[in-house]
Amino acid sequence: MADGFEVTPYRVEGRVDYAAYAKKFGISIIDKRIEDRISKHTGELHYLFRRKIFFGYRDLDFVLDEYEKGNPFYLYTGIAPSGSMTLGHLLSFMMTQHLQEKFGAEVLIQIPDEEKFLIKEGLTLERVHELAYDDAANVLALGFDRKKTKVFFDTEYAKTMYRQAVRVAKRITFSMVKDAFGFTNENNVGSIFYTSMQAVPAFLKSVQLGRNVPCLIPLGLDQDVHFRVARDAIAKLGYYKPAILHSIFLPSLSGKQKMSSSASDINDTIYLSDTPEVVEKKVHRAITGQQDTAELQKKLGGNPDKCAVCQYYKYLFEPDDKKLQAIFDGERKGTLLAGEHKDDLAKRINKFLEAQRKRKEQAMAKLDDYLLRD
Amino acid sequence: MADGFEVTPYRVEGRVDYAAYAKKFGISIIDKRIEDRISKHTGELHYLFRRKIFFGYRDLDFVLDEYEKGNPFYLYTGIAPSGSMTLGHLLSFMMTQHLQEKFGAEVLIQIPDEEKFLIKEGLTLERVHELAYDDAANVLALGFDRKKTKVFFDTEYAKTMYRQAVRVAKRITFSMVKDAFGFTNENNVGSIFYTSMQAVPAFLKSVQLGRNVPCLIPLGLDQDVHFRVARDAIAKLGYYKPAILHSIFLPSLSGKQKMSSSASDINDTIYLSDTPEVVEKKVHRAITGQQDTAELQKKLGGNPDKCAVCQYYKYLFEPDDKKLQAIFDGERKGTLLAGEHKDDLAKRINKFLEAQRKRKEQAMAKLDDYLLRD
Repeated sequence: MADGFEVTPYRVEGRVDYAAYAKKFGISIIDKRIEDRISKHTGELHYLFRRKIFFGYRDLDFVLDEYEKGNPFYLYTGIAPSGSMTLGHLLSFMMTQHLQEKFGAEVLIQIPDEEKFLIKEGLTLERVHELAYDDAANVLALGFDRKKTKVFFDTEYAKTMYRQAVRVAKRITFSMVKDAFGFTNENNVGSIFYTSMQAVPAFLKSVQLGRNVPCLIPLGLDQDVHFRVARDAIAKLGYYKPAILHSIFLPSLSGKQKMSSSASDINDTIYLSDTPEVVEKKVHRAITGQQDTAELQKKLGGNPDKCAVCQYYKYLFEPDDKKLQAIFDGERKGTLLAGEHKDDLAKRINKFLEAQRKRKEQAMAKLDDYLLRD
Repeated sequence: MADGFEVTPYRVEGRVDYAAYAKKFGISIIDKRIEDRISKHTGELHYLFRRKIFFGYRDLDFVLDEYEKGNPFYLYTGIAPSGSMTLGHLLSFMMTQHLQEKFGAEVLIQIPDEEKFLIKEGLTLERVHELAYDDAANVLALGFDRKKTKVFFDTEYAKTMYRQAVRVAKRITFSMVKDAFGFTNENNVGSIFYTSMQAVPAFLKSVQLGRNVPCLIPLGLDQDVHFRVARDAIAKLGYYKPAILHSIFLPSLSGKQKMSSSASDINDTIYLSDTPEVVEKKVHRAITGQQDTAELQKKLGGNPDKCAVCQYYKYLFEPDDKKLQAIFDGERKGTLLAGEHKDDLAKRINKFLEAQRKRKEQAMAKLDDYLLRD
């Protein structure tokens, strides 16, 4: 933690300074210029861009250059099952779905059903595999194009994956992953190898088509490490380095910077599997931006930036900027009562989760249409 | 090289002290007692046992106990393609074939077509895969039972293999492979993971049958490291630790302790692909046990232990102990002329290679009957 924070797929420690990370590791910040390039193709910028929830990128200009020359890119993202998906997991998938729609792009979704098994003691492969089906259905429920979307689980697509992963692995030393992931000599050899598997979908289409195809990966910043390590290896194999779009983290209900899916933060996190009652209870315990005393509150007003309820509207539940502004103003002026404010959010979340569960059931029934298997 | 030698699959340095290795790493030495247990089932002991070319074991009593209780074991061995097979590669396969015949055992042959790719710069996966077919045919040409023998290439059986390999990998740390294989932080992550793949066939039958099946692995001592690391991991998964039979190395033609398949020793090594002319040339350059001067030779006689020609008879080309004795005596007394001695061996080798090539062609045509593919 030389910078006062650490951010890897396996640990987020300290308060992440997104700008500092971007500077240190060569991520470009999304500015007006690149926004204009994007909106030239998408029309109005997606709220995840407008609100800087997706804030950074690598090689996006290259991908857009190629697109404008008639060489389309594909999108790749994924999720490592370890328990029910959380609201925080949705950001990358929502962005991916949006880009698919606007660019007509194919989407490849990796569900690495060995990753968390390798990292977490006590988690069995069988359990992760069950969760993998659940995650796949939840992801597809977000509205991906049936004709342009493929999903795979690592253990069921391993004949395809392992062959390519060893090509990447040959170019990645233990020193590299040790530094990047904060591993020690006591890490198991599966966890050390795994990043090679996550690299494969970033060039797999090029392998399969026998020509170089650009790839764009929307991801949460904690996943950037994998590609910091793999992008050079992929280039050495003769493929395009994948382009990346980075999002910041959905805060937790208690105001922590990152909502976690780990068991220690269960009450701080909303899972897609939470019942309406549980959601209500959790939201009602959420932190708000109210001042500590009534006097201060009157004097200073509330602070929406510190209010988890406002933040959930911003990240997920109020795409309309004007309506969001009204919510933020209400919080700021204190005209929004905390109880009502929370009731409204809980209702919005539950409405989403209910619809999501229905769509998920439908997606589960059609899963075979999407699944890649060896 | 704390012991003055190092022996791993990737490097053999110094003069290997087999007894010291066995003592240090808990290998039992094959003695009269275990010979009697073996010959009770095989009839006359195989010459590879009689001549202590197979000299050590782990858990062989357990495998024989189970066999005698009616619980048969299966045999597992393999070869990592990197060039043409050499005569030295034959020892494990000959032993495996012998044990299959005598115990009616099933045989599983792993051809890890990623291992040497990961270790050697400049070797492509495509090239290794070609060599893998060649090796498979050469192995099967040694006379394995068509109904009881299966062969697989890692990249073509990876869906089955990877899923099991991650289970082993979770139990093996980088510290463990670093010490055992002499790896450094600059090893690539594929080479670090690979030992997990080599562990899988040692318990794969148990996975597939849903019950614990004993496994016996005949191997050259350089392969012992893999199982020193994996046996505990396999036990932690609830499977029997595999039993092992260890051979010493076939010496090189120049009298080095181990015939190498690497390019630097090409003239010291006989490849199964060598033409009759090449074999003759190489054998005629082989070291013999003759003394440096005619006077010394007359006084002391030759030394068959230092004569590569005698050793090749001992290891591979004269299974009859009496005939071998006659050859050794001839060398010792100097009645055997070096030229004739070498001519005879070259003829024997060429006779074997010619027959082997014919059998190999037949095996290649039937390869699909043996191959496991996902």
